[in-house]
Amino acid sequence: MFETSGFPIVQAPMLGAGAEALAIAVSRAGGLGSHPAAGSTPGQLLESARAIRAATPAPFAINLFILDPCKPDPQVVRAAIARLAPWRARYGLPAQSEPPIWAQDFAAQFEALLEAAPPFASFTFGCLTAEQASALHERGSRIIGTATCVEEALAWQAAGVDAICAQGIEAGGHRGSFLAQHEDLGTLALVRAIKSACALPVIAAGGLMDGQAIAKALAYGADAVQIGTAFLLADEAATSAPWRAAIARAGPDSTRMTRVFSGRRARGIENAFMIEMSEHERDIPAYPVQNALTQDLRAAAARAGKSDCLSLWAGAGVALARPGAAGDIARALWSDAQKLTQD
Amino acid sequence: MFETSGFPIVQAPMLGAGAEALAIAVSRAGGLGSHPAAGSTPGQLLESARAIRAATPAPFAINLFILDPCKPDPQVVRAAIARLAPWRARYGLPAQSEPPIWAQDFAAQFEALLEAAPPFASFTFGCLTAEQASALHERGSRIIGTATCVEEALAWQAAGVDAICAQGIEAGGHRGSFLAQHEDLGTLALVRAIKSACALPVIAAGGLMDGQAIAKALAYGADAVQIGTAFLLADEAATSAPWRAAIARAGPDSTRMTRVFSGRRARGIENAFMIEMSEHERDIPAYPVQNALTQDLRAAAARAGKSDCLSLWAGAGVALARPGAAGDIARALWSDAQKLTQD
Repeated sequence: MFETSGFPIVQAPMLGAGAEALAIAVSRAGGLGSHPAAGSTPGQLLESARAIRAATPAPFAINLFILDPCKPDPQVVRAAIARLAPWRARYGLPAQSEPPIWAQDFAAQFEALLEAAPPFASFTFGCLTAEQASALHERGSRIIGTATCVEEALAWQAAGVDAICAQGIEAGGHRGSFLAQHEDLGTLALVRAIKSACALPVIAAGGLMDGQAIAKALAYGADAVQIGTAFLLADEAATSAPWRAAIARAGPDSTRMTRVFSGRRARGIENAFMIEMSEHERDIPAYPVQNALTQDLRAAAARAGKSDCLSLWAGAGVALARPGAAGDIARALWSDAQKLTQD
Repeated sequence: MFETSGFPIVQAPMLGAGAEALAIAVSRAGGLGSHPAAGSTPGQLLESARAIRAATPAPFAINLFILDPCKPDPQVVRAAIARLAPWRARYGLPAQSEPPIWAQDFAAQFEALLEAAPPFASFTFGCLTAEQASALHERGSRIIGTATCVEEALAWQAAGVDAICAQGIEAGGHRGSFLAQHEDLGTLALVRAIKSACALPVIAAGGLMDGQAIAKALAYGADAVQIGTAFLLADEAATSAPWRAAIARAGPDSTRMTRVFSGRRARGIENAFMIEMSEHERDIPAYPVQNALTQDLRAAAARAGKSDCLSLWAGAGVALARPGAAGDIARALWSDAQKLTQD
């Protein structure tokens, strides 16, 4: 199903670090570039799809977060604002008011996605209905659903999608989870469990930083791999300067899972905000409320070149991330993986 | 409260890798050596305490797991045995029968501990009663209780203990958790949360592999640090040869949390057993049943020099573990931490 021009490497859609240029570079090189459109208006989504199509005839993916309309309890919002006030003061930001919107409207984004009809549409944080999946198929888009456990993979299969992205615990950024579960599995274990329960092609995602890891994922049954963190330092990525600096400093034990930035579990490089806000972990409002409330604080920190309260999303293998042109990174990963597979 | 001869570094009690010689070496060097006695009979516990006392006048700790008597459902045991059969066959082991005991009897171990009256007694997997804590205090032992969340720290405080060992998610080996919780916190975040909720000294445990990490833990309010993984390659440790080899090969993303070896969540280096058994993660019987059932398989693998089904417990920073004499490792960690603290 991966009719890319070259090899079964999907570049992960990374909201905040992704950019049309990154997707274009990876798709041109022979992988499957993904554009993160979860933060886009319908118009921006259409424009991104147009720009990528104009730059390359190769297939690409557009990614959306599946979110229900959000109506948070005003008391919960007030408490969350109060918890963030000291951090805003450090950055000289004015008192916080409610943001005009909590998140983009998924229904409107989905309409735009149908219009854009990208070769691949990928989704996280929820599951499409069978009707939504059919509508995308009628437009000629293939569908990738993100699953963090077998139940989620089976839900995607029931909706009638084309592939499962199996997101293991090592993956950087937000967990795509949408069904209750006991314990997060590592990527290889998750791939194996989903392959044995489910008939769809599986894309292994999480902690795959080099050719050896890719070869191992394929050996455990993955049909393709999704790579995010290994592209964070790519020339074409939109990764901010302090985020890049934190990645360059990261060691073998730098990432943690946290809810404090967005209200949804995500893996990133530990910083002061993560450590200090963790004691409120349970009280923090669910995504997208906390995400919206921390947005201008994070933007202010990035402008100031500071990483202490940035969401430094990165996978568990971040110490292996290297700079370079995204196309070169993609080709090198695949060529290293092939050498090991042939051995 | 850490009346060690030198510095506030506790050597973690590591069942399977700990040894009297390791505790002796660390206590002699000026840290607090810990002997893991959870697998010991009462007689063995007394003998270990005697041997350590004979070797050094420095304080040391004896560690026990707080376990209730175990009466597993025979059907659950049969299913667990069936799941392990293919692995036993690979190692030429005979069909499995129920082990004579599931675990050592905690009540009997606790009586022996009172008799041994070590300078420090540390506990994981549960909480002492106030009566048990008083009995240890009457014998002159100081008590360290392991907590993985604020509620557990408060339970230990209510029992009347002397210090909390705050075990963050980075820690290698078994999680000490005994109360329900939402999300595992990283070590620094956990130290901060427990310090703000609880009046006792806090020992930071998990992912502390070098002087910089130790200095950071102390800066976040820890009164001492507990170090395990950094001692796994020590000359005096009982770490098996294939376990040592796996540690030497470990990279920045080698460890995972798993229940498959013991029925209790623990962090170790990923291997084939962990990946392949993960699809049964939810069905595996709780500790100590799975632990007892996998024991001779793990022993057979260690004898064969193979690591594919060994429990390769290690913390998230295992790539930084280095060989050497345990006393040298302890002194170097403290001296590096001090240099950074003075800067």
